[in-house]
Amino acid sequence: MTDSSYQSALLAASNLAPSHYISGLEGGPEFLDAVLTLAKALKNTPNFKELTPLNGKILTALFMNPSLRTRTSFEVGMKHLGGHMVVLEPGASSWAIEYTRGAVMDQGCAEHIIEAAGVLSGYSDLLALRAFSAMQDFDSEMKDVPIKALAEHSSVPVISLESAMWHPCQALADALTLHEHMEANAQPLAGKKFTLTWAKHPRMCGVAVPQSTLLMATRLGMDVTLAHPKEYALHPEVMQMARESAKHTGGSLTLSEDIDEACQGADVIYAKAWGAPCDYGNAAHGSERNMSYDNWIVDEHKLAQAQFMHCLPVRRNVVVTDSVLDGPQSLVQHQANNRLWAQMALMLAMTPT
Amino acid sequence: MTDSSYQSALLAASNLAPSHYISGLEGGPEFLDAVLTLAKALKNTPNFKELTPLNGKILTALFMNPSLRTRTSFEVGMKHLGGHMVVLEPGASSWAIEYTRGAVMDQGCAEHIIEAAGVLSGYSDLLALRAFSAMQDFDSEMKDVPIKALAEHSSVPVISLESAMWHPCQALADALTLHEHMEANAQPLAGKKFTLTWAKHPRMCGVAVPQSTLLMATRLGMDVTLAHPKEYALHPEVMQMARESAKHTGGSLTLSEDIDEACQGADVIYAKAWGAPCDYGNAAHGSERNMSYDNWIVDEHKLAQAQFMHCLPVRRNVVVTDSVLDGPQSLVQHQANNRLWAQMALMLAMTPT
Amino acid sequence: MTDSSYQSALLAASNLAPSHYISGLEGGPEFLDAVLTLAKALKNTPNFKELTPLNGKILTALFMNPSLRTRTSFEVGMKHLGGHMVVLEPGASSWAIEYTRGAVMDQGCAEHIIEAAGVLSGYSDLLALRAFSAMQDFDSEMKDVPIKALAEHSSVPVISLESAMWHPCQALADALTLHEHMEANAQPLAGKKFTLTWAKHPRMCGVAVPQSTLLMATRLGMDVTLAHPKEYALHPEVMQMARESAKHTGGSLTLSEDIDEACQGADVIYAKAWGAPCDYGNAAHGSERNMSYDNWIVDEHKLAQAQFMHCLPVRRNVVVTDSVLDGPQSLVQHQANNRLWAQMALMLAMTPT
Repeated sequence: MTDSSYQSALLAASNLAPSHYISGLEGGPEFLDAVLTLAKALKNTPNFKELTPLNGKILTALFMNPSLRTRTSFEVGMKHLGGHMVVLEPGASSWAIEYTRGAVMDQGCAEHIIEAAGVLSGYSDLLALRAFSAMQDFDSEMKDVPIKALAEHSSVPVISLESAMWHPCQALADALTLHEHMEANAQPLAGKKFTLTWAKHPRMCGVAVPQSTLLMATRLGMDVTLAHPKEYALHPEVMQMARESAKHTGGSLTLSEDIDEACQGADVIYAKAWGAPCDYGNAAHGSERNMSYDNWIVDEHKLAQAQFMHCLPVRRNVVVTDSVLDGPQSLVQHQANNRLWAQMALMLAMTPT
Repeated sequence: MTDSSYQSALLAASNLAPSHYISGLEGGPEFLDAVLTLAKALKNTPNFKELTPLNGKILTALFMNPSLRTRTSFEVGMKHLGGHMVVLEPGASSWAIEYTRGAVMDQGCAEHIIEAAGVLSGYSDLLALRAFSAMQDFDSEMKDVPIKALAEHSSVPVISLESAMWHPCQALADALTLHEHMEANAQPLAGKKFTLTWAKHPRMCGVAVPQSTLLMATRLGMDVTLAHPKEYALHPEVMQMARESAKHTGGSLTLSEDIDEACQGADVIYAKAWGAPCDYGNAAHGSERNMSYDNWIVDEHKLAQAQFMHCLPVRRNVVVTDSVLDGPQSLVQHQANNRLWAQMALMLAMTPT
Repeated sequence: MTDSSYQSALLAASNLAPSHYISGLEGGPEFLDAVLTLAKALKNTPNFKELTPLNGKILTALFMNPSLRTRTSFEVGMKHLGGHMVVLEPGASSWAIEYTRGAVMDQGCAEHIIEAAGVLSGYSDLLALRAFSAMQDFDSEMKDVPIKALAEHSSVPVISLESAMWHPCQALADALTLHEHMEANAQPLAGKKFTLTWAKHPRMCGVAVPQSTLLMATRLGMDVTLAHPKEYALHPEVMQMARESAKHTGGSLTLSEDIDEACQGADVIYAKAWGAPCDYGNAAHGSERNMSYDNWIVDEHKLAQAQFMHCLPVRRNVVVTDSVLDGPQSLVQHQANNRLWAQMALMLAMTPT
């Protein structure tokens, strides 16, 4: 692929770019396709670092929670494209942020999101935020107040680095990984069985990854099975969107409460732990419930002929066995590496010129 | 304005640059003017990022306290000018620092400022430090031992990112903001009423911003009114300098203990909370005293026709109402944005070639 | 020296570069010599920043412990060479890391080194890790599990930023400092008396610096005296390697339990505090024992005609007196500054092209 392919892919993606990228559904299937095409074009443009298309551009990324892949891949991606990422950690190296409109700020938070968003978007060409669920109140946290407030008050595009509800950049990298894997095997994604399974875990984790993964897989037209113990239902709106998406793309969505059954005949098994909505606000109960489902671990027997996917970090020998992770059917390193490429494409498309 | 304006402004500012920038008074009114001129020239040089005048230059910035604007604007500014900012957090990611000459270092601090300053100035072209007051002892903390010790032992220029006594870069950005606002309205600053008012706050804050603001406004020749409840007097040396500055520039300095009276007829109201010197060492008392002055909040009634200024972060509906902050007379975003331009000018002037 | 000297030194060092740099012994004396030659060539290439030989290259550095010199000098060095350093702090801004093979990860660590190393080496051209001893179990911690595991699972070269066992980059800078000092005085290192002495300290510190220093000095062919109270023996393998190294280079290794005697007639005194192996797991005992050796401080009397060296940070008036540190025989700033040059040479040699 030549520079001209890259340039035309860039133009196409830029023309479709939404204002913000929070759920990952913004811009519709056309933008998803355009970003994936641009990511592949970047991979096929060996001299892309010399193009420095984001020369002089600034991404300011706010991390409320830890990060390894997200932080490194965005920082490296900006550098490769000629730009620069500034990292802030509100509540630690930076001020704790208030999100409520009309708040009388006489408590712990020193800065309101209105000022933070306004000021940082004045210094930056892109903003990004990681703000996990606090695992205290499922319904209210699923409103994703922090990232939506940032977008509302920012004068530049906002990209989510994972919120309570969504992890759109993970889904983007995963879609790229599935595309590439199936292209390498000359097989279409449509009609393939994709099993997204809950797994046990010593702590309560958010639902952002499974929710983004579910939408991603149904948008790719796969036959999706979602497996989890009954207490672990995802957000009803997400389920509704996934059903509609599957209908629209000609795929399907099947629910299961039996991990063994759900894994049978799967082409891809995507594992992820998350906390039960009923345990929000009670971490000890949640952890105990999680670990009580002893069989909910992906092992070689459940894997069979499937590819294995996980967003990482992963609890070895709790969520998945060493033998699966270290075996030839594991795509986890491929997924993580594609964060870099998918996000470079996303930033290229979304950065104002 | 052309590149040649920028080049002549740069030359003028560089020729006047002081060794360090700690109080913001270094270099006198001539340097202040030269930096403001250079900042405006930068704004009028659309291709300034291509000039990379600080190519290969390093600013190492030490943060003892949180920061959003300061950290981001310095890091972005260095990147725009072709340089790079390294961030250290002594006591966290870096070693806790001892400042006392002759100390027997058998307690918590692992590194003396003599070594830290010597080593970091060997790696860097500029150093910067944020070291707030610990709010324990007013008189001793106003000596600004950390920043002065850093400057004493550094072989390169030191810029303050706010100390107990001063916040010079905020004052610089505020002066630029006032210049631009009055130029846009074709009105001179001399003869305008500038009210700097204390405001209530749930915590004790330092006096650096009001002290730097007071000097800035008197240096601009404005008719300055300083309003605060009687326990909240600023440092006597600062008051003396402000009186002399007002006399020198033809402005004036008036004191008030009545916020309503002080705000009447103001062209600009600059609000800021700070702790009472008598409450240093007793945060609970200080917070309680702060909040007891219930009327000390800037609202639309007090604002009337004035412009509103604040350094940010600001406690909404404690220091100032939402309606003022979100209204058309608020300059706070303008002030924050000018941090970037004023500090780029300052770094350009002060970096050794 | 011209660019061609730099280019030939770079080629020579690159050809000898080992896979990883953990003990600092990798690549043998030839690689040590080649890196020192390259460092000197860099110093003599005034325009080296314009060459940007590491343009587009990424170093990802993981810090488990605080750092001032190491972090700043690597970050500045990468910038000067055209590359970029990403900083992660596992356990704080990034996930806590598990190192044990086969671990059932149902405890505090969220990510295994297998994933962390694989993912980060996919984003990076070099990795680096600082992981001090936890001072709990001497024998097991000297196995240096974290840095060895990172190297095992990384697809790119790994450089140690100090482990429990070694601080190779400090030794490299110190060797460069000794070279330069003796060259400036037109004296060979062979035959010079180098005294490495333990010093008292209010806390237990690791043995990495003294162990790397001991090997460095014996590799340079110096007559080395190692002085410490009897409880403070270094690792037996290190002692054996030092004896063999001294024999090989024609130097010598003498042990002493008397700091005064050890310092007599020294050309160089290198001071460093470390914890006694018998006190690992008992920090209070260790600190008390450390401070009980009251005479183990380098003062002007012990210094006499010797040069003084220390890796920094240093406890003033505990490890060494102010008068020695601030006097003309102190090389500590020279050592710290050489971190930058030695490490730029190391990164140049080790980065895959």
